[in-house]
Parts: sequence; C-alpha cells; structure tokens
Amino acid sequence: MKDLGIGLIGTGFMGKAHAIAYRTALSAFPDIPVPRLVMVADVTAEAAAKAAHQYGFETSTADWKQVIANPAVQVVSITTPNSFHKEMVLAALAAGKHVHCEKPLSPTLADSLEMVEAAEAKGVCTQVGFNYIKNPLLKMARDMVAAGELGVITGFRGIHAEDYMHDPQSPWTWRIDPSGGPGVVADLGSHIIGMARFLLGGIAEVNADIRTIISKRPVARGATEMKAVEVDDVARLLVQFERGCAGTIEANWVQTGRKMQLAFELTGEKGSLVFTQERLNELHFYKAGGDSRQMGFTKIEAGPQHEPYGGFCVAGGHQLGFNDLKTIEMAEFLGGIAKGKSAGPDFREAYEIQKVVEAALASSRQRSWIKV
Amino acid sequence: MKDLGIGLIGTGFMGKAHAIAYRTALSAFPDIPVPRLVMVADVTAEAAAKAAHQYGFETSTADWKQVIANPAVQVVSITTPNSFHKEMVLAALAAGKHVHCEKPLSPTLADSLEMVEAAEAKGVCTQVGFNYIKNPLLKMARDMVAAGELGVITGFRGIHAEDYMHDPQSPWTWRIDPSGGPGVVADLGSHIIGMARFLLGGIAEVNADIRTIISKRPVARGATEMKAVEVDDVARLLVQFERGCAGTIEANWVQTGRKMQLAFELTGEKGSLVFTQERLNELHFYKAGGDSRQMGFTKIEAGPQHEPYGGFCVAGGHQLGFNDLKTIEMAEFLGGIAKGKSAGPDFREAYEIQKVVEAALASSRQRSWIKV
Amino acid sequence: MKDLGIGLIGTGFMGKAHAIAYRTALSAFPDIPVPRLVMVADVTAEAAAKAAHQYGFETSTADWKQVIANPAVQVVSITTPNSFHKEMVLAALAAGKHVHCEKPLSPTLADSLEMVEAAEAKGVCTQVGFNYIKNPLLKMARDMVAAGELGVITGFRGIHAEDYMHDPQSPWTWRIDPSGGPGVVADLGSHIIGMARFLLGGIAEVNADIRTIISKRPVARGATEMKAVEVDDVARLLVQFERGCAGTIEANWVQTGRKMQLAFELTGEKGSLVFTQERLNELHFYKAGGDSRQMGFTKIEAGPQHEPYGGFCVAGGHQLGFNDLKTIEMAEFLGGIAKGKSAGPDFREAYEIQKVVEAALASSRQRSWIKV
Amino acid sequence: MKDLGIGLIGTGFMGKAHAIAYRTALSAFPDIPVPRLVMVADVTAEAAAKAAHQYGFETSTADWKQVIANPAVQVVSITTPNSFHKEMVLAALAAGKHVHCEKPLSPTLADSLEMVEAAEAKGVCTQVGFNYIKNPLLKMARDMVAAGELGVITGFRGIHAEDYMHDPQSPWTWRIDPSGGPGVVADLGSHIIGMARFLLGGIAEVNADIRTIISKRPVARGATEMKAVEVDDVARLLVQFERGCAGTIEANWVQTGRKMQLAFELTGEKGSLVFTQERLNELHFYKAGGDSRQMGFTKIEAGPQHEPYGGFCVAGGHQLGFNDLKTIEMAEFLGGIAKGKSAGPDFREAYEIQKVVEAALASSRQRSWIKV
Repeated sequence: MKDLGIGLIGTGFMGKAHAIAYRTALSAFPDIPVPRLVMVADVTAEAAAKAAHQYGFETSTADWKQVIANPAVQVVSITTPNSFHKEMVLAALAAGKHVHCEKPLSPTLADSLEMVEAAEAKGVCTQVGFNYIKNPLLKMARDMVAAGELGVITGFRGIHAEDYMHDPQSPWTWRIDPSGGPGVVADLGSHIIGMARFLLGGIAEVNADIRTIISKRPVARGATEMKAVEVDDVARLLVQFERGCAGTIEANWVQTGRKMQLAFELTGEKGSLVFTQERLNELHFYKAGGDSRQMGFTKIEAGPQHEPYGGFCVAGGHQLGFNDLKTIEMAEFLGGIAKGKSAGPDFREAYEIQKVVEAALASSRQRSWIKV
Repeated sequence: MKDLGIGLIGTGFMGKAHAIAYRTALSAFPDIPVPRLVMVADVTAEAAAKAAHQYGFETSTADWKQVIANPAVQVVSITTPNSFHKEMVLAALAAGKHVHCEKPLSPTLADSLEMVEAAEAKGVCTQVGFNYIKNPLLKMARDMVAAGELGVITGFRGIHAEDYMHDPQSPWTWRIDPSGGPGVVADLGSHIIGMARFLLGGIAEVNADIRTIISKRPVARGATEMKAVEVDDVARLLVQFERGCAGTIEANWVQTGRKMQLAFELTGEKGSLVFTQERLNELHFYKAGGDSRQMGFTKIEAGPQHEPYGGFCVAGGHQLGFNDLKTIEMAEFLGGIAKGKSAGPDFREAYEIQKVVEAALASSRQRSWIKV
Repeated sequence: MKDLGIGLIGTGFMGKAHAIAYRTALSAFPDIPVPRLVMVADVTAEAAAKAAHQYGFETSTADWKQVIANPAVQVVSITTPNSFHKEMVLAALAAGKHVHCEKPLSPTLADSLEMVEAAEAKGVCTQVGFNYIKNPLLKMARDMVAAGELGVITGFRGIHAEDYMHDPQSPWTWRIDPSGGPGVVADLGSHIIGMARFLLGGIAEVNADIRTIISKRPVARGATEMKAVEVDDVARLLVQFERGCAGTIEANWVQTGRKMQLAFELTGEKGSLVFTQERLNELHFYKAGGDSRQMGFTKIEAGPQHEPYGGFCVAGGHQLGFNDLKTIEMAEFLGGIAKGKSAGPDFREAYEIQKVVEAALASSRQRSWIKV
Repeated sequence: MKDLGIGLIGTGFMGKAHAIAYRTALSAFPDIPVPRLVMVADVTAEAAAKAAHQYGFETSTADWKQVIANPAVQVVSITTPNSFHKEMVLAALAAGKHVHCEKPLSPTLADSLEMVEAAEAKGVCTQVGFNYIKNPLLKMARDMVAAGELGVITGFRGIHAEDYMHDPQSPWTWRIDPSGGPGVVADLGSHIIGMARFLLGGIAEVNADIRTIISKRPVARGATEMKAVEVDDVARLLVQFERGCAGTIEANWVQTGRKMQLAFELTGEKGSLVFTQERLNELHFYKAGGDSRQMGFTKIEAGPQHEPYGGFCVAGGHQLGFNDLKTIEMAEFLGGIAKGKSAGPDFREAYEIQKVVEAALASSRQRSWIKV
C-alpha cells in the first residue's frame, strides 16, 4: 500500500488527537496506506515547529496555505475553530486534497452545503470528526438494529450532556461567540444526532425547546463586567425518525457533574440497547424471550470479537480509550481513500446532521414541529 | 392515640399492598393512630372472606357499600379498577369517611374535579396512591432542592418506563380499555409527573408526542383475532416548570427490558441528583465546588439518617422495599388524619397531576405547546 | 390452617423485625398457619406494654418466663443479647415450644450444642435468624448450583463487611464484650459462612487470619478513658469446601464506607454468579458458551418468577426490602411447623456454622489449617 | 532533549503495545527524549520486516542479537516468552543498554536476581511491564494513602482474575508449560501483588492456597489426547504488609466471565478506595466524617486533574485505554533514562514481587505462613 502524505492544520485538543491517531493507525490497521506526517501548521512558526517536533511531522509552517500547497500532502486534517473551516476546506478541496474537518463543518448551513458540493464536485474523500460512533460496540449495535435483532424499533432516547459551562462564573469564551454558530445544539447535539442517525437512519421531523440558561457571563475569569450570552445552553428535542419510530434527544453543556454523558437507550419490540460514553467499553443488551428467571440486561464488554478492537489488543476487557476511537476514525478515513470511497461520516453526512440542528433551532423559535 | 377503623375495597395488587401497609404502619410509626382493620370488600363473598382471613380484617362483604356504611370504618381505601373510583369515592365522602384512592382518581378530568370538590366540601382527609415519592431519599432530595443546595435548577429529565406491554402478542386487556382513561401517560406518566411536581413544583406548559406503538393486539393470549388499541403506549413531553426551568418527561410501557425505570436526573447550577427506582435505596449526588481531584457523583445509601427509614430498621444499608414505601404512605395518611390535615398527595394534587396528563394529550393532538 | 400463638422475647432491632414479619407473613404466604401475636416480653413492664401496643401483641410482660409459660404460645422468638439465648432457649424447649433464636445461638460452641441437642430431643421446630439467605434470588442461585448450571464449582469469594466499628472513637460496647462471644467473625462472619453453606454445602477446612484492628476504645462516646478490646474486628479465611472447591471468606466491621457488603462471587466452569446485599434485588449471572459478541454478566432483577417474591408483589422490579426477607424467614418457619419439619436454617445448621467460626479462631491462633 | 534509539525484540501482544506506546509517547509527554524506532526483531526476517513496516521501525532482523549490537539502539524492549528473557536481558545489559523487560523477569527467582544484579552493576535504567499501576487514578490513590487521607490502613483486598483458562477444553499451551515458571500466581498474581506494593509498600508474610483446578487439558483444541497440567490456576493469599495491615490477594485465570477483574478495595480508618480495571477510568472514594445524610462512595472520573491524563486529552471524562497506560509506562521509562534514574518499577521491584510469588508457592506447599 502506498503512502499518504498528511497535513495538519491546528494543533490544539483535536489537532493532537489527529496526530496521535495518524501515528498509531498503521499499528492497529495493517492494511491501510502508510500515513506520512508531512507538514503541520499553527498560528506561529514557533508553535508549529514545536508541534512538528512533538507529533513527528517532517515540516511546519505558520501559513496554513502552505500545507495545502505542499505537493507531498494528499490528506489535510483541519482542526481549527469553526469559523475558519470554510476557507481552509474550500482551499484544500480546490487543491484536490482529501479533507478531514472537525465538526461542525461551518457555522451556517449554507456554507456547509457549499463545502459539501465542492467536495462532491472534486470527487475526493471527506470525513467529519464524529469520533464516538467509531466505537466497536456501536458498530455492533448498528448491525444488530439493521439485522432486526431488536425487532421493530419503538423508541430512542439520546443525550449528550457535559458540564463545562454549568458554572455561571465560567467566562464568556470563543465557544459561545455566535460567529462560531449555535451553542450546545451544534457542539454536543451534533454528536448525539449523528449517533442517532448512525444507528437508526434519518430524522424526519423535530420539535425542540432550546434555551440559554445562563444569560450573562463574566468577560473573563473573575471579571465583574458581564457579557450577554446569545447561544443556547440546552436543547431538548422530540424527534420523529424516517423509519417511523420516535424519541427524544438532549444536548446540554450545563449538566452539572456530567463529564461525558453521551448516552442512549434504544428499544425495539424484541430487545433494548443501553450505552453511555462514560463507560465506553460496555454495551448493555436486553433480549426478550428467554428463560424469564434469568433474563435481564447483559453487560457486554468490548473485546476482539468486536471489530476493530482486535487491532489494538488481542485480549478482551483491556479497554479502548478516546484516542483509540480517534485512531479508528483516521484509519478508516485512510482506508477509504485507498478504496476511493469515503468511509464516513463524510461532508454530506455532516450536512445532514446540521440540517437537524437547524431544524431544531427553527422549531424552538416557532414553538412547533418542523420537518428537517 | 385512638384507633382508626379501616375499610378496604378491592383486594388485588394494590389491595394487598394497602393491607400489608396498614398492618405494618404502627410498628414503623409509633405515633400514628392505631389502624383497626374492620372490613374488606371484594366482588364475591368468598373472595372477600378469603382476603379478610389473609389480611386480618375483622369482617368482609361482597357489597362495597357495606364498607362505607359501616360505622366502625372511618377510613376507606379504594383499590378497584379506575372506572369504579368515582362512584365509590363519592359514596365514601358522602358518608364522611377519609378516603385513600389509588391513582388515577378517575378516567376523566371532569370526574376527578367533582371528586376533589366533594372531598374539600366534606373537609375529610384524602390521599392518592403516588407511593414512590414516599421514599426517604426522595424526601431528602426535595428538601435539598428547597434549601437551594443545588442552586438554581436548570433541568429535569424524568422517566417512568416499564415493559409489561412491549410484546405485540400481549393481549388486549382492561389496562388498555379506553373506558378506563388514557394509556401509559396516565398509568405511569402520572407517577413521574407527580414526582416532578413533588421535587420542583408546578408544571406550567407541555409539548408532547404521545403514541400508540402497537396498534392491534390479540383479543386474548394466543388468539388470532385482533382488536384495535385506542390508548397510548408512549408519551414524550417537553415541559416548562412554573419555577422557570424546563425538562423532559417520558412515560412508556413498551420499554423492553425495563421493569421499573422510574428515574430522574435533576440538575442545578451547584449540583445534580440522579435516581432510579430500580435501585430505590440509592441517591446519587454531585456537588460542585470541592477538590477537583476527588469530585464525582456520591452514591448515598438509605439509612436511619433519612427519615423515616429508621422506623423500619435502625441500621443503614438494610434497604426498604416497595411495600415499605406503601407503609410510609399509609402511615402518613393516618398521621395526617390525626392532625386533621391530609399528608398528601391529596385529591387536589392528583387532580393537578391529571391536568398535566390532559394537557399533554391535548398538546400531542394539536402538535403544539399547551398551557396546563 | 389453625393458628399458631406467638411469643416474642426482646423488642429491639430484631424484635421489631420479627413483629413486622409475623404481622405480614400471612398476607404474603396465604397457606401458612395464622400467626396470633399472643405475648411480648421486654425488660420493663412499660417497655413491654409499649411494644405490645405498637406491634399488636395481645399481652405483655417484664418476665420472659411468662411468655414461655403461656399456654397460648406455641412459638417463641428470642431476640435478646447473645448471652441470654441459652437460658431462654432451653426454657422454651423444655416447655415444648417451637423456637426461633437470633444468631448466634450462644457465645460458645458447647452451649450451642447443648441447645441443639435439647431441641432435637424435644422434636420441635427451630430456626436461627440467618435472614439474608431467604432472598428469592439466592434461592434461585442455590438451585442453579445444585442443578449444575454453573458446571463444576471452582471458587467462592464471600464477604460480609460493614463499618459500624470503623471509627477508633466508637466506644466500647456490648457488641465487643467478650462474654457475648467472638467479635465480627461470629457477628457478620456467621452470615457469610451460612450463605456459603447454603449455596455450596459444608466447609471442611479453614486457614484464618483474625485480628483486632482497634485495640482500645473509649469507655463511652467522647470519653478519654480507654478500655482494651478483646474481640476481633476482621477475619480473613481461606476455606476448603467438602465438595472440593476452595475460596475465601471475610468478615469485617471496620470496612469504612460499607453499610451492607454481604457479597459473593461464585464461579463454576460454565458460569458465575455475583451478588451483593447492597443491591439485594439483583443477581448477576454469566453463562459461558453463547455468542461471544453478546456474552457478559446479565443483571437479573427480582420478580414474581423468583419464588416467593410474588407473595409480596405481582409485578417484577418493585423490590423487596430487608423486612420482607425477615417475613419470608418467619413465614417459612411457621410453614415448617405446620408440616412438622424445620424449614431451616435450624439449630443444627447454626451449630455447623458456629463450628466453622470456632475452627477459624483456632486456625488463626495456631496460624495453620484446621479441619472443621 | 536528545533522541533515544529503541530496539524491540518480540512483536506479539506486548510487542505491538510497546511499539504503539513508543510512537505515542512524545505526543503525550513533550519533555521526554524523542524515541527513535531503530530496529525490531522477530523470529523470521519476514515477520520482522512486516513489523518494522507496520510499527515504523527503521530496520528489522531475525537475529535479536543484532538489535543489541546495534550502536544506534540505546533502549531495548524485550517482549518475548518468559523463558527467553534472561539470555536477552543479560546480553542487552552487557552491551550497556537500558532494558525494559515484560513481566515476569524470568521463571525462577535465582535467574531474576542474577538479572537484577547485572543491571545494578551496569547502572543502566530498567523497567518491567507492570503497566496497570501507570493509571493516573492509581497514582492519586497511592498519594492519598501516603498523605494519610485514609488514616491508618486497616485492610486490602486485591484480585486479578480473568477467565482465559476457565474452559476445561482450552488446550494445553505455552502459558502452562512449567518451563515458563508458575501459572496464574506469576502471570496475573504479579500484577496485583505489584499493585499492592505500589499502594501500600512491602508484603512481609504470606499464607497461600494455590491450586490447579483443571488437572488435564487437551493437547490441542479439540484433541482427545490429554496432557497433565502442572501449574496453578488459582492462588488465594492471606497477606501481612510490612506497614502492619493485612489483607487478601487472589490470582485466578479460571474466573468464568471476568475479562479484567484487576480490582482492589483498600480501607483505612478514615476512608476507602475501590477500583477495578474493568472500569479503569473510575476510582470510588469514601471519606468518613461529613454530613451523614450525604455520605457515600464518590465515583471519581479520570480527567486532566489526575496527572498525566492531561497529556492525552485536555477534557475530563474522555477516558484512557489500555494502550494509553502502556504509553505512560514507556514515557516514564524514557523520562527516567534522561534523568539517570529508573522511573520504576525496575528490575529490583520485579524481583521483590517475584519473591512474594515464590513465598506464596512455598506457603501453599507447606500449608503455613511464610516470611517473604
């Protein structure tokens, strides 16, 4: 398998995760193209050089356009703040690169559509960073639903709740700058909406209640000057899936005490699945119809029988972590490029997720059901 | 404390629970009036006599009016199917009895209001069987909210889901006869709505999606003849509380695998509480603001420090069961009678809960927010 | 079924539990003799009268011998401190009564044997208060082991740990008065030893390490005067069962944070069972040999399919509490009397348990394996 | 920081884990020397070349001695079967390399001591693969114990149980070849013994019961020919720590259903810690002495406040996996080399652990307490 030259733009939380993932991918997935870490960009030459050293890139730059211009780079990972995505993505696409962009594609649906269409026109592979669905247990969950193991699906409860904004004294920050798009409904909501789509398919209609809980925040940690918050802190959705079933979805970044409550309960006439990212190596499965004395939810622990866990460890119960999910994501992306087909979720899927987000916002404003 | 003569009408699931509770109440609550089990009624003289023997009632009858007419009876427990409640309750009230009626008061809001007004006109004590909120840990939860220990409340997720109707082959039954009122939104929904009100106060507005999942059921176990189902199987509500916060409530009797998922997550700016009736002796509490290395949800186990657990057992961790909650309920009812004041939840509270149920049904029909 | 007159000696923690159990037994077990609460004894006439009122006994006395002498009493429950058991039990047996005695039978093995032999000579029914094994889920566990569902048993880990003595400032008390017998190895150890025997049969040999952790305690709460502790705080045993398998057993009353860690993990070649009294309505079962992708421990929740849960509640998941276990215990005792056969655990079984306790103490002193 | 050239011998389960860890280490730990993957050895040139490609080593060889002879290699990781360790380690030490060797050092205590002394004579850094104690939460646990947050330690229960040998039809394999040393007491026991030492310090004395549960196994999967098993399947130890407290330790590879039950409960007069590797991102902490209504075990979730979690992810709750623990291990090893001091656990520590293993085996044979 020939090499693929990687360029990385942005070296923060997600930039590091991409770097670790690219460095680990081949070890866990021997059949993918060899990722060659060609060039990394950050806002200063110094930061970029430091990142190149630490993450093992061959070269670095303070000018992200050089990453895209670099002929040795075939794949570009974009992990900058949301408001930069569009320009970078369009430039990378114009240069014919395969592009991974962190979620959300852009602050507005129109811009995202432009990016989708540009990518599809170019015919390159794309991916957006919905990493949590790369969990081997969730792949099995999706397969179980698809195979009818749960029977007709009758309900879905999805949540992505964390608490990083719960404290009214947490200051105003880029995260709540409306130029970056909506608040939690986009930031966390897109993960659980994407997971719902991954498991059950399209969402046809939504009826949402989306709110700003903390209306003013200090301009800085400890400041007395306050600044109004314009984006949402919590979103609660009634949803109707295209397949016929309904459910609820919640996104919440003021859920005091929760660090990673990305969770669902998915129920069918013949069984149920319960999952939380808080214990990402477990999936709880109830199967109707056995010996009533011994029925109950079974705690399935991830192991090599759940692909692609075995690439990381040959023994069950050893546990994958967050960075391993990111490695699966990147490895699948590279594998898809080799096959000429996005492994997904691609830009189109990200756009479909964003359409649900936008429909939810509209629904909340109009206080009514809205078709996606 | 003088005795209170008890009459019981109905000896099924709840009738037995009432009987056990009355028999145990004084042992756990030494200061209440002594319940004297005077008379029990069932549909046949034989069944009534058997119940009298088993539950320790002095006399029995196949005519429920005799229970009410019995001058030694001051307190009447009504545990018959919903459609009988109104006639029995009104008769008992007319006779000046204190009345405990199992939930819901009646299939329709109008009838329930009539019962409330009759009770208030008589000035007797009333109670409706919302037993789960009698849990000592939930009393503490309510007190913590009221005392501001969680700060401003920012969200509530409530669920009451079970699976006794999940199987499409489960036959048509009295439980889904529309003459008994709505389906799960009344049957289980009233419990979680009542719990939400218990913890947080009134619900101002609802936006609901209420559905029948299994549209036809066999007329009997194993029958091929099918009968249309007219009542709801699942209800999903967006709710707005009078205090300002919002949340979601779900009632569901097709939640495959769940036997008693009466659960909530209640969040404030300073802390959160997580509870499920599946582990009714535990309350999980997160308190913001301590040493970040050692923060997390604390699993509080019920003990004598949580009143009135100590009446049942002087040692912590021994655990209360469902019938103990019922005992607390009945003991509080009797204690309230002695003080001339319903301990609650009284008929008025049951009516308020039913108003939320009715508003949810209207909301779902109209596909819009409805003020309660 | 004819009545059985009940006499109760002692009205503390366990006395109340007996009273509640007798009052509830017939409601949950319709086929047992009707328990008639005839007479209760406490140390003063006033306390006894108060107990009679509260628990519903017909008469009361400050002289426990009157309970035994009362011809209307056929069954005597003895819930006094350990050091009184022998005299009371022998007197009751001499009077031909059926006797329930709280554990342990007596502080010494010799005295216990005398009590066993007296009971067997009289041919009456006896029972000792090992209430936890009355759990419907544990009855199923025992049946599963006996039926070979777990295959050849390969190991047992049993624990009964609580923390009521963990604080060095907890004062010297009757519980650690050596005249009452050993410390935790008898108090809690007997429960887990009894549970091990219930599930797996006899223990052949032990190798124990038994210790006093807190060597001196204040003579009273807050006192500066200290008194030496002579009994054990923790006991750790290696055990060899007669059936061939081995395991460990721990008894511990200084296990800080644990309120009711009466727990075991029982493993066979084909499966495992995991239980803790902290969640007494759950049994976790692993069954080897299915689809490897979906295997794991199944959380079985108690329901009417687990006899005799259904006597308390017709719906699963509603949960039994500690007092319900006590009700099962007493109902089985009364049912056994009606059939002329102790339902167990009888005096002989209590003696067998105590032999293990004594062997453990000897083993620890000799620092070697000891045959029971 | 200058580079360190890495040589890897063996590319199986642990070999891959080492490779991934070396590749990730600098990303998570920016201050360590840059690991340069110089040469990898496997049994055939083909396998070695494949590993070099997949894991990113510059060169490969079928002759492990070339790794050691390579002047560009300063650090050698040895992940071959136990019986090869001694020769390879001694050769690497003789060449002045820093050596990481997977556990156990060697099948016999005498050989291990020879290896320890050779390393100490050379003054190089060594490490042995006790990866689980690299968990950030366990580092905090150790610090809490050391700081006295739990008060005087009163007990420790440690377990490492898995089930990879539970099936009697699992064939005879290298893992149970006695030439590789003892069975589970060395394989898994060394992990939990090492963890106990990490948390509490030295073990002074043991009293063990060590058994072979399945005495014969098929010579191959599905074979009818059986071969006797000479090594142990389960080890149960009573232990006495040098600091004065006691406890139990179990190692078990026939614990049906358990995939990674590396767990402990560590108790002091003022608090307790409960951990299981099955949920390696959680530590449960009970702190005595607060508001009794709100006390209980707190579930602490790993986050950047627990060093060095933050090197992997800046947000809490995202979870580390097994390979991340391995990365911490290797990064600490390299960091220690830079500082001229083994970060540990070094060969000496591995030898101390093995002494406990050997003492346990002797104790079980002699059926008595043995000083370590």
